[in-house]
Amino acid sequence: MKALEDKIRTEGSLLPGAVLKVSSFLNHQIDADFMMQMGREFAAKFGDTGVSKILTIESSGIPLAFAAGAALHVPVLFAKKHLSSNVTGMLYQTLVHSYTHGSDYTVVVEREYLHPDDRVLIIDDFLANGNAIEGMLDLIAQAGAETVGVGVAVEKGFQEGGTMLRARGLRVEPLAYITKMDEDGIEFGQPDFE
Amino acid sequence: MKALEDKIRTEGSLLPGAVLKVSSFLNHQIDADFMMQMGREFAAKFGDTGVSKILTIESSGIPLAFAAGAALHVPVLFAKKHLSSNVTGMLYQTLVHSYTHGSDYTVVVEREYLHPDDRVLIIDDFLANGNAIEGMLDLIAQAGAETVGVGVAVEKGFQEGGTMLRARGLRVEPLAYITKMDEDGIEFGQPDFE
Repeated sequence: MKALEDKIRTEGSLLPGAVLKVSSFLNHQIDADFMMQMGREFAAKFGDTGVSKILTIESSGIPLAFAAGAALHVPVLFAKKHLSSNVTGMLYQTLVHSYTHGSDYTVVVEREYLHPDDRVLIIDDFLANGNAIEGMLDLIAQAGAETVGVGVAVEKGFQEGGTMLRARGLRVEPLAYITKMDEDGIEFGQPDFE
Repeated sequence: MKALEDKIRTEGSLLPGAVLKVSSFLNHQIDADFMMQMGREFAAKFGDTGVSKILTIESSGIPLAFAAGAALHVPVLFAKKHLSSNVTGMLYQTLVHSYTHGSDYTVVVEREYLHPDDRVLIIDDFLANGNAIEGMLDLIAQAGAETVGVGVAVEKGFQEGGTMLRARGLRVEPLAYITKMDEDGIEFGQPDFE
């Protein structure tokens, strides 16, 4: 998605540890109109998969997942990191390691919102090592539901997550695929298999 | 908003401690089309205020804030509960007490996304004691920006938050205003001042 590449080039910045900061429009401040545009892009890519539900993990995946849900007219479920007093039902839960926060955390979804007949599209803002997405795949498997694909705003192609997911036959669609980022700038490309 | 009252009646359930569970459409699973409809409702209510930015707190306020941002075509900023490696700028921060989680937490926004000339609409899913909204008001005040109003999906009119905020002259608009909820059911009404 050319518009996303342009926005990353103009508004993104590189932080130590291969962290790409896109807080001006993607995961702290949200450019609402642009986010809706990305949601429609996912709808175009995955509209033929019979998706019945979108799954993401709080917090930074929520706006993008919601934009995709609005474009596809399907419910959006977000896995929660914290057990709160309004999470009461039977749960599916899994452990995710966060490189960004440097810690493990448990995420949960209530069983009543994920069914064996669901066809689930996973949406997240970033795909790097793939840990968050592995966690969501585990939740979907526990429910006996089917994963129809994985859509991310930005894939860091120089990390192994996307390669591992595709090797297992998953359809993984980034809106922007970064092949290299360093002090010289950010380079975009396409995943090898395409 | 009659449609929201109906949805709370049919899909909501009461949990101990005056917790209203609406996880099927508002804050765990999200009914994307209905959320967009609520966003347009806020746009209709606050469209005349010159709002330049929407502020919420992660996580459960994000979808509603984003829906309002999409309808008003303004950026959405969400205060973060955790310092992560991609929060790098100078921060505004404040302390919020959560009754739901039974603990205090710090929320932050990066200063570069909240300016003295911003006209800020606060959006959240629930208004009960008003602590989260007090926190957001503090962040806005630190930035020297102006608060044009507060929009919430559900106000628990039997708790003191809304009364306190209105007493300070703030425009507070709930889409559903609950006057009473107990084992006999949920009763809706309107804030006294209207």
